[in-house]
Amino acid sequence: MTRPYNFSAGPATMPEEVLAQAASEMLDWPDASGKRCGIGVMEMSHRGKEFMCICAHAEATLRSLLEVPEHFKILFMQGGGLAENAIVPMNLSAFRAQRGERGQTDFVVTGAWSQKSLLEAGKYSDSHLAATSQVSGYTDIPNPAGWKLREGTSYVHICSNETIHGVEFHALPDLKSLGSGAALVVDFSSQVASRPVDWSRVGLAFGGAQKNLGPAGLTVVVVREDLLGHALAICPSAFNYQTVAANGSMYNTPPTYAIYMAGLVFDWLQRQGGIAAMEAQNMAKAQTLYRAIDSSVLYVNRVHPDARSRMNVPFFLRVDALNDAFLAGAAAAGLLQLRGHKSVGGMRASLYNAMPLAGVQALVAYMHDFERRHG
Amino acid sequence: MTRPYNFSAGPATMPEEVLAQAASEMLDWPDASGKRCGIGVMEMSHRGKEFMCICAHAEATLRSLLEVPEHFKILFMQGGGLAENAIVPMNLSAFRAQRGERGQTDFVVTGAWSQKSLLEAGKYSDSHLAATSQVSGYTDIPNPAGWKLREGTSYVHICSNETIHGVEFHALPDLKSLGSGAALVVDFSSQVASRPVDWSRVGLAFGGAQKNLGPAGLTVVVVREDLLGHALAICPSAFNYQTVAANGSMYNTPPTYAIYMAGLVFDWLQRQGGIAAMEAQNMAKAQTLYRAIDSSVLYVNRVHPDARSRMNVPFFLRVDALNDAFLAGAAAAGLLQLRGHKSVGGMRASLYNAMPLAGVQALVAYMHDFERRHG
Repeated sequence: MTRPYNFSAGPATMPEEVLAQAASEMLDWPDASGKRCGIGVMEMSHRGKEFMCICAHAEATLRSLLEVPEHFKILFMQGGGLAENAIVPMNLSAFRAQRGERGQTDFVVTGAWSQKSLLEAGKYSDSHLAATSQVSGYTDIPNPAGWKLREGTSYVHICSNETIHGVEFHALPDLKSLGSGAALVVDFSSQVASRPVDWSRVGLAFGGAQKNLGPAGLTVVVVREDLLGHALAICPSAFNYQTVAANGSMYNTPPTYAIYMAGLVFDWLQRQGGIAAMEAQNMAKAQTLYRAIDSSVLYVNRVHPDARSRMNVPFFLRVDALNDAFLAGAAAAGLLQLRGHKSVGGMRASLYNAMPLAGVQALVAYMHDFERRHG
Repeated sequence: MTRPYNFSAGPATMPEEVLAQAASEMLDWPDASGKRCGIGVMEMSHRGKEFMCICAHAEATLRSLLEVPEHFKILFMQGGGLAENAIVPMNLSAFRAQRGERGQTDFVVTGAWSQKSLLEAGKYSDSHLAATSQVSGYTDIPNPAGWKLREGTSYVHICSNETIHGVEFHALPDLKSLGSGAALVVDFSSQVASRPVDWSRVGLAFGGAQKNLGPAGLTVVVVREDLLGHALAICPSAFNYQTVAANGSMYNTPPTYAIYMAGLVFDWLQRQGGIAAMEAQNMAKAQTLYRAIDSSVLYVNRVHPDARSRMNVPFFLRVDALNDAFLAGAAAAGLLQLRGHKSVGGMRASLYNAMPLAGVQALVAYMHDFERRHG
């Protein structure tokens, strides 16, 4: 039996062989040599040698895949991107502030997620809108040359891929060349592991795992070491990056099973040829879908071609009344979770690493057929 | 093949039939009628009807099992008990404070966990030690009649079962009868679902799931509705109980798989006869082990009989040099994760719901045998 193609924006489709391996190990985990320990991963003390080994392997594999330099820490945390919207300013907003002064934070708003980050940061810092593409309906990326960055700002926040609006930064901004000494903070929840990262431009990147890395309930934070140690006094210990780093992500009990699952996904990514291979496939998938949309009469994507996301492709039927028929027919054809986010409507196809090209081809074939029947 | 008995303090042993069900549903989840949806729980959008159904079922089953009254909300959160040590005072410390005044919080310290809670709350409130059993080495529970509760304090915090020190409240204090109008906050991480809860005495109870409820990465919070809406301005939105409650635990993406697993555990608890049946079995298990310890020459547990935990039984060998031999022999006999917490040493056997009486009997038989050989 073939599985349906699941286009959910997250939690999202997982590689079938990863799920099959997890199922087979559920009651009795084997180590790398195949030796069974008699219990499942969910039942292991996080301080035992078996889980410590699973966690260290996951971290090392992720570091290798993303080519994270040694002067960055990788932290496994909880709460997802929305929690990080508070955790980041609690940890970094004072990075370049004078003692006792309220730190400055600058935001580039390119969609729903960066907008939420800006609002939340205002609780902890003097947060400021440096640029926005709101006037275009979040269909492009403001040119960095025009960003209004403040002197002395601690960090500049971007969302490198807006999951709802389908807008992606195809290059990270070089803050130094813009004359800013601030750290770049990147919410890469729906971009991580889909393409390489230029770490020379990044201070901190965070992402919920539930798109490209594994199950919901795990947040990955990659932070440059010099940014540790600036947390506000009101930062909870469990969310203080320095505390989390000093305890190898085990200050509080980590989400052990989610870390294990992410580790299986990282192993799978390596078997696929790593991030470069995934990027090539992700480009091919995105091109296939955008070409089908652009060459149709019925479907439309309004994002500027230079800013179109490879991961999340929102599109609309020019005849709204056909939406339900489109979704019902798609589900019947084994193409699932295509309904767009409620705030924008229409459709959305998420093309994360675990979505094969064959899934996109099946979607495109269905779209052609649907248009022929209803166009 | 029989599985070993796993005495880990958490993450802890899970019922075998729960793990087997999860493994069988990993790639294709069936609803209550047996209808398959083609994808696994980990891959479902948290806003889709399948996961909404899983989450609502888990919450309803937990409410039924614990007999949670309707004027309490059940929240599924992240970060575990250590995160709640900050989240609780950020939400509740101003409950009875005047506007702009720093709220008062009172703590009864009976071991390592309540001690940590007291320290963390000092970041957000005027926190105060109302009573402690430190002088006894945390081997008893201070009599509530002697607690130094302050007038106007917002809440009184207890840890109803100290996982490390093995000390348990066998009745919750009645703050009203002590003349206090404060809310009682209970950290029941390692007690929840092992016995009934007298909700008439509780304002809020929280617990990490990884002992008696399911996998690590899920926190269950049960909060009386009148305690919502008092959060400090610096409380992160993702950890604001009112926000979480208003969004049915889906303000941020919840730890979907952990909620699903907990739901399977709740179903299993119902099949066992519910909390009353578990309590009877937990009493029998604890009695079996304490009796073996007390009737031995080699083993000792120093906790006052009235305060001994049913869930976590720390014990010591009177000859420290035998510790490693004891642990090695136990592992060879299929009795796992018995090493005590590093801060207290010795041994610890955790007897959560998923540990059968047969496991405790096997441990006791091994202890007798070991004593005969080394005593």
